[in-house]
Amino acid sequence: MSQQVAPVALRDIQRPVAATLERVVDELRRIIAADFPVIAEVNEHLLRMKGKLFRPTLLLLSHQAAGGEEPRAVTLAAVVELIHLATLVHDDSVDHSALRRGMPTINALFSHQVAVIMGDYLYSRAIIELVALDDLEPLRVFARVTNEMTVGEMRQLEAHDKLAYGEAQYDALIRAKTASLLSGACEVGALRAARDCREALARFGMSLGMAFQITDDLLDYTQPQAVTGKPSGLDLKEHKVTLPLIAALARLAPGDRRLVELLMASPDPPDDLVAEVIRAVEAADGLEYARRRAQELAQQAETELETLSPSPARDALRDSIAYAVERHS
Amino acid sequence: MSQQVAPVALRDIQRPVAATLERVVDELRRIIAADFPVIAEVNEHLLRMKGKLFRPTLLLLSHQAAGGEEPRAVTLAAVVELIHLATLVHDDSVDHSALRRGMPTINALFSHQVAVIMGDYLYSRAIIELVALDDLEPLRVFARVTNEMTVGEMRQLEAHDKLAYGEAQYDALIRAKTASLLSGACEVGALRAARDCREALARFGMSLGMAFQITDDLLDYTQPQAVTGKPSGLDLKEHKVTLPLIAALARLAPGDRRLVELLMASPDPPDDLVAEVIRAVEAADGLEYARRRAQELAQQAETELETLSPSPARDALRDSIAYAVERHS
Repeated sequence: MSQQVAPVALRDIQRPVAATLERVVDELRRIIAADFPVIAEVNEHLLRMKGKLFRPTLLLLSHQAAGGEEPRAVTLAAVVELIHLATLVHDDSVDHSALRRGMPTINALFSHQVAVIMGDYLYSRAIIELVALDDLEPLRVFARVTNEMTVGEMRQLEAHDKLAYGEAQYDALIRAKTASLLSGACEVGALRAARDCREALARFGMSLGMAFQITDDLLDYTQPQAVTGKPSGLDLKEHKVTLPLIAALARLAPGDRRLVELLMASPDPPDDLVAEVIRAVEAADGLEYARRRAQELAQQAETELETLSPSPARDALRDSIAYAVERHS
Repeated sequence: MSQQVAPVALRDIQRPVAATLERVVDELRRIIAADFPVIAEVNEHLLRMKGKLFRPTLLLLSHQAAGGEEPRAVTLAAVVELIHLATLVHDDSVDHSALRRGMPTINALFSHQVAVIMGDYLYSRAIIELVALDDLEPLRVFARVTNEMTVGEMRQLEAHDKLAYGEAQYDALIRAKTASLLSGACEVGALRAARDCREALARFGMSLGMAFQITDDLLDYTQPQAVTGKPSGLDLKEHKVTLPLIAALARLAPGDRRLVELLMASPDPPDDLVAEVIRAVEAADGLEYARRRAQELAQQAETELETLSPSPARDALRDSIAYAVERHS
């Protein structure tokens, strides 16, 4: 993969669906609208911190690649972003995160209470919108996926502070937490396509999503705050065990392993200890191992696309793989 | 009402649907089952603290009173309790409550994080179960209701510490927070009945629910912890403004008003100050006013039942009104 594909900008991937994506933002605004003051304020903040619309992009590209031309795809794309937003709001509250995409989180800017309630508000709005489409199929997929995501969040709680946390558990975590929604986005985009096409896109989204999350976890080791909008080494600071550390632990020299134990035993690890552990993980090829796994998953995702007929949307989906594993933020 | 009806036990109300209610508990257990350890533990705790199944009771009685005999009513009844549970888990987390029904809350026993995630888990399970029924109508009602409940929770945040909080705002709050789900339970029970019957039961549930919540707010003024499972005067301690206080405020002598201001200004009001304010609210007929409003709403609820043909289930629904306004816990 990395040999064949030059770095890809999200904008390029979005080209085949650019016009539709603009309507997705309006649709999102319409769906979450509220006349209750606090809710309206939070909504404005959420729309300002609006992300890169990666999930709506995948949904719309899958739709197009599978030969769909339904107007409701705009609503479905808005809903997948809305579910993502609802999840972020609760995740930030659960993690006590203060920053997201370089902006204050809802729990930081308003309160923990507002964050819990707003997550519920956004999610129930998403369900209302899906019901209004008068079709149980998207509901079926998204209900399953959001339930998987809550199990993923529970797994995340377990991934703290545990040096015995293994790769199989990590895989189950990132499938549930991240990949399930990307898979759901692709599947919902192709709901009315032939079954093999729908299933291939669901599997594509799952492999892509796992590669995406591994890359995210790698960025925590490699990128400074200025690039990601989050402090670097934050996962380690918060005692979150991710793939680079899991891979490195098996091979760490006793002294370096002791450093990791020190970090995990420290309620608020100092920056130099975090930097030392990052160095040790890199020296034990933890980063390299994680990169290799991301590449393998990227390869699997690419294979799934072979089921589809050639189209600009299929090309964009292929490029989205490169984007997922090569991005810097 | 109170002249005609002797105190009613919930057990009596539940008689026409007693056999079905037992299956509701099994159904609830089936729906929330999980093989992930933390989730399974929380589930066990929730099932142990299982309440009085008032909402499933209303759903099943409405179903029967409207002439329904569908097996899926058991699942719908389990789902309405599940939605209620999900809401309680988040509410307790938002309110930092330590006790519920005399038992420790999820946030107290596990953690705030677990409570947020579990609420999401339970709610998404409810949606999955509704989707599996292959009918959009119950989903339509419950999605609307859960969204209203989140707006109600947001209103609740505003009902803190505000002596300018008025009765219209209080009404909007208790409709959204409590009555909407009772109304939804009654409506979903009667989804396949004639439209006038379905709508009458929805209105019945709304009036009943408002009377129910006013009574709940009164109990906070009148009942000791041993009876309700919650410390008495807790709402005042937490600066929650409810109907007895709203009604009394308009008539309080300046000295008593000053007591209320003192209480609201105190981050942790002492018990004797709480007791003084309760006395002042009672002296200004705040309790009496709230009781009268509950009775009016009870009367409205009773009127709605006239649309239905006579049946044991209709009688039980009538008794549920007396239960709602005359209960002591």
